Amino acid sequence: MPARAHNFFAGPAILPVSVLEETRDAVMDFAGLGVSIMEVSHRDKTFDKVIQEAQADTLAIAGLSAEEYAVLFLGGGASFQFAMVPMNFLHTKAEYVNTGEWASKALKEAKLLGNAVEVASSKESKFNFIPRQFAVSPDADYFHYTTNNTIYGTEWKQTPKVGTVPLVADMSSDMFGLKRDFASHALIYAGAQKNLGPAGVTLVIVKKAWVEAKAKTNIPTMIKYKTHIDGASLYNTPPVLPVFVLGKTLKWIIKQGGLEAVQANNEKKAKLIYDAIDAHADFYKSTVANKEDRSLMNITWNLPTPELEDKFIAEAKAKKMLGLKGHRSVGGIRASVYNACPLESVELLAKHMEEFWRSNK
Amino acid sequence: MPARAHNFFAGPAILPVSVLEETRDAVMDFAGLGVSIMEVSHRDKTFDKVIQEAQADTLAIAGLSAEEYAVLFLGGGASFQFAMVPMNFLHTKAEYVNTGEWASKALKEAKLLGNAVEVASSKESKFNFIPRQFAVSPDADYFHYTTNNTIYGTEWKQTPKVGTVPLVADMSSDMFGLKRDFASHALIYAGAQKNLGPAGVTLVIVKKAWVEAKAKTNIPTMIKYKTHIDGASLYNTPPVLPVFVLGKTLKWIIKQGGLEAVQANNEKKAKLIYDAIDAHADFYKSTVANKEDRSLMNITWNLPTPELEDKFIAEAKAKKMLGLKGHRSVGGIRASVYNACPLESVELLAKHMEEFWRSNK
Repeated sequence: MPARAHNFFAGPAILPVSVLEETRDAVMDFAGLGVSIMEVSHRDKTFDKVIQEAQADTLAIAGLSAEEYAVLFLGGGASFQFAMVPMNFLHTKAEYVNTGEWASKALKEAKLLGNAVEVASSKESKFNFIPRQFAVSPDADYFHYTTNNTIYGTEWKQTPKVGTVPLVADMSSDMFGLKRDFASHALIYAGAQKNLGPAGVTLVIVKKAWVEAKAKTNIPTMIKYKTHIDGASLYNTPPVLPVFVLGKTLKWIIKQGGLEAVQANNEKKAKLIYDAIDAHADFYKSTVANKEDRSLMNITWNLPTPELEDKFIAEAKAKKMLGLKGHRSVGGIRASVYNACPLESVELLAKHMEEFWRSNK
Repeated sequence: MPARAHNFFAGPAILPVSVLEETRDAVMDFAGLGVSIMEVSHRDKTFDKVIQEAQADTLAIAGLSAEEYAVLFLGGGASFQFAMVPMNFLHTKAEYVNTGEWASKALKEAKLLGNAVEVASSKESKFNFIPRQFAVSPDADYFHYTTNNTIYGTEWKQTPKVGTVPLVADMSSDMFGLKRDFASHALIYAGAQKNLGPAGVTLVIVKKAWVEAKAKTNIPTMIKYKTHIDGASLYNTPPVLPVFVLGKTLKWIIKQGGLEAVQANNEKKAKLIYDAIDAHADFYKSTVANKEDRSLMNITWNLPTPELEDKFIAEAKAKKMLGLKGHRSVGGIRASVYNACPLESVELLAKHMEEFWRSNK
């Protein structure tokens, strides 16, 4: 087996080695049953335990109660939630903050389905900040925001204040990477393939009372949150292996010490790279206007020329650092340092930045 | 590692051991990149090769051309296709044959969305046959049927004749288990977790010209087949590991000699069990009225009493035969003998049937 690369992919992204090993073993035999985790019936009680524990662990990590919230493991990715949220909850008006490409897509999808209003946007300045000035209509069906902007390297550090309006968050790219006021939310969704597990499963945490009171009933069965709540996320065959891996990753988060420990570790790692940027701010140009908006998860910057950026990436790749190319829509450099990214990889990157600056300044 | 069980689960179901081994290895390292198949970007060219080969292999096995058909790997399961098909294609009227629980669900979903008509049903006789007498309206938007009925053990052996009406098939539970006239179809969908791979990915094969000519455009982005065709099944992050496993399973099918060899093997296996049923027809009561409708994939029967059925299942389990309990909605016995089920397991089951009859007749 080749040595592990230093994985800075934006997603699908790095997972804990212990989770990979548990998955490897379960692929050959699940729970001593003599069948693979990919071959076991989703109705088998051994898998039922996996899904129930994953639901309980999600709530424990988030500090939420099973009385109030349901935890669902759905297919289709966050992109499908862009439609599923308004299909269930957009009656009269929904409000969105536009902080990047995924926020724009969520808004666009809602507009296809009803009256969705952009209450604030940082688009005119290339999404280089998180808007703080906006009014929320008290009668909005819900308010939607995107906690972390993978492409532009910005992140909401505080939960927006929306009064009694149901708050909906796409947390795909920083879910369980830091503590948040999860209990302020009516619905949270997150494609798993950043901090939670592999691609193919989307975590949804939703307030049951909101679904009962407000969700539309005249929509297709699979698009109703109620279907999946009533079916305990087993209405139809779930993505069994991705759910298994997500469950193991949640247990790894708990073992780390929960979100407090995870966040401290992520802050330490991010600081190493932001310090390297700030030390040579005329050479490494952060794409984020305000330091308080800097993402813990995705750190984005430019070099003086695209040629230097290519050289930086190529030389990093030679040192087994993968995934540092910025998103195709913006270019530049992006280092994604999710929960499972080891300190050692980040130290190597910071060292590369210092050396590259020295040789190319 | 415990010895392999004899896996008769209806789905998720048995996979080839070689595919499990390839997956186990890729979970630790994918293609020598130093990252897991669960950690690699879906935009990486190494994974792009996986998805492109899986598309090409699907068409090769089915004998279809890439000019005419697109191959998509979607989330949400076949249950989501129950809605996606009518959301795209139901304008005026669609016609359905009702041959079991999944066919009923597909029909019910289409009725939620428009004018869906049941042209034939075997419901009144507990779905124990495949209807052959029905008229197809030449002006129907499409005609939908379910090739294999997992719960009731029936299977269409011939493709229904529908003239120029676009033919849509749910092939979830016998896809690539036997040869079919795939080219007669406008759209085929199949949840992977039977003959194709693990749960979490749904194979869709769709005629591109039909989508261009007839698919609705005023529906959510992720629900449009066109979105996924235009995005070459990479519009958003696909379920990477399930697609990888599906790709390996397709290569295993090709290595077996394609559908001709796979079907011959499946016929041989199914015959062993049907012969055991027919040898003691007063004790083992087939649930299927006409022998020509008997499924190659899911063989269902009853014993004289539920108590004997429980005993049959318990004694089989003691011999490491798993998954023989009939679906909770009908009870009885069900042996699912998908492509990867080894002859050895089927021989053991046939032997168990003979011995059990001798001891309990």
